[in-house]
Amino acid sequence: MSAEPRKIRLGALLFEEFELLDVFGPLEMFGLLRDRVEIVMLGERPGAVRSNQGPRGWVDVTLAEAPAVDVLLIPGGWGTRRGVEDPVLIQALKDQAESAAWVATVCTGTALLARTGLLDGRRATSNKLAFKWVMSQGPAVNWVPEARWVEDGKFFTSSGVSAGMDMALGLIGKLFDRETSLQVARWAEYTWNDDPTRDPFAKPAGLVD
Amino acid sequence: MSAEPRKIRLGALLFEEFELLDVFGPLEMFGLLRDRVEIVMLGERPGAVRSNQGPRGWVDVTLAEAPAVDVLLIPGGWGTRRGVEDPVLIQALKDQAESAAWVATVCTGTALLARTGLLDGRRATSNKLAFKWVMSQGPAVNWVPEARWVEDGKFFTSSGVSAGMDMALGLIGKLFDRETSLQVARWAEYTWNDDPTRDPFAKPAGLVD
Repeated sequence: MSAEPRKIRLGALLFEEFELLDVFGPLEMFGLLRDRVEIVMLGERPGAVRSNQGPRGWVDVTLAEAPAVDVLLIPGGWGTRRGVEDPVLIQALKDQAESAAWVATVCTGTALLARTGLLDGRRATSNKLAFKWVMSQGPAVNWVPEARWVEDGKFFTSSGVSAGMDMALGLIGKLFDRETSLQVARWAEYTWNDDPTRDPFAKPAGLVD
Repeated sequence: MSAEPRKIRLGALLFEEFELLDVFGPLEMFGLLRDRVEIVMLGERPGAVRSNQGPRGWVDVTLAEAPAVDVLLIPGGWGTRRGVEDPVLIQALKDQAESAAWVATVCTGTALLARTGLLDGRRATSNKLAFKWVMSQGPAVNWVPEARWVEDGKFFTSSGVSAGMDMALGLIGKLFDRETSLQVARWAEYTWNDDPTRDPFAKPAGLVD
């Protein structure tokens, strides 16, 4: 008898005023593979934490005490405005991001990762409506204004809110294979924008001509 | 000075093994209008409740003790299999649904609403991969196999998981106007399938030729 393969452990960050869909869009996709992916919710302290929209999520374990994760997911939301100024959070994120095999950010979550310095010299994207602020958090990052998501080494960064779902399916293709991504999209009745360069929102936001 | 207009109160149901995106996709869209919409999370008891994917949501108030809501949102997920056999839940849902101005279901959440009898003689849809089971919960409903979502009177029912976001934007158009729906979609960088009859998943699921 062969041992069951170890599940991939995904750690998702929560903080006050996180953006709901930044977190739960990607987790829907990864969570549909629950025989292969284990999700743990990370935060400042265990317990309920309020989203930008009002409804609360739940932190299982503090970021500092969390086990090492294979995939680290960092969402955006208004709370990132405080987060970028929180050196304890940024250091804990840096520690987890350094040991993780993959790091994925959604929306303004890219600003938090940029503040760790780990994106310096790398290509990355973020929310189109907050792009200038996010850029200011990582002057040494090669910012890509027109992209649904950007992959550079182990770092996946996505555009705003809904783009996290497209990126998640892209990362699932990397962790497993493309057929798995397509299967997850079918289960979720989701029309996957599977082309990371196809970004319908850069132009309306005035980021490209 | 004119009084500030009353916010629309949206109550969203949670239960053990709810589907993450069924809930938080629509709530992302409504929650982006937080100056006009107030969200309250309803369930069997206050506190944390585990989703189908693992991460927990948070119930603010029991369904029975909840204030009357303007919009009632009923998600799907594996927990609906137990829910349809729970007469206390079905009666509480029926009471809230009768007094609500609008009732919206996502995915197999339609099965819960069907069990209240309120969909009898009305058109409705649901998840394409669980369609036969959902139909069996409401033999007197006029089931529509090919639809992203269906509107009949005050009832909005949607197809599986991701379809809840398209329906939510449709309902936002009803509550406010189409420009508001388009604005929310832009904020969320979401490509809205705004045609309720365009259903890419009915044919692959074998529900139509």
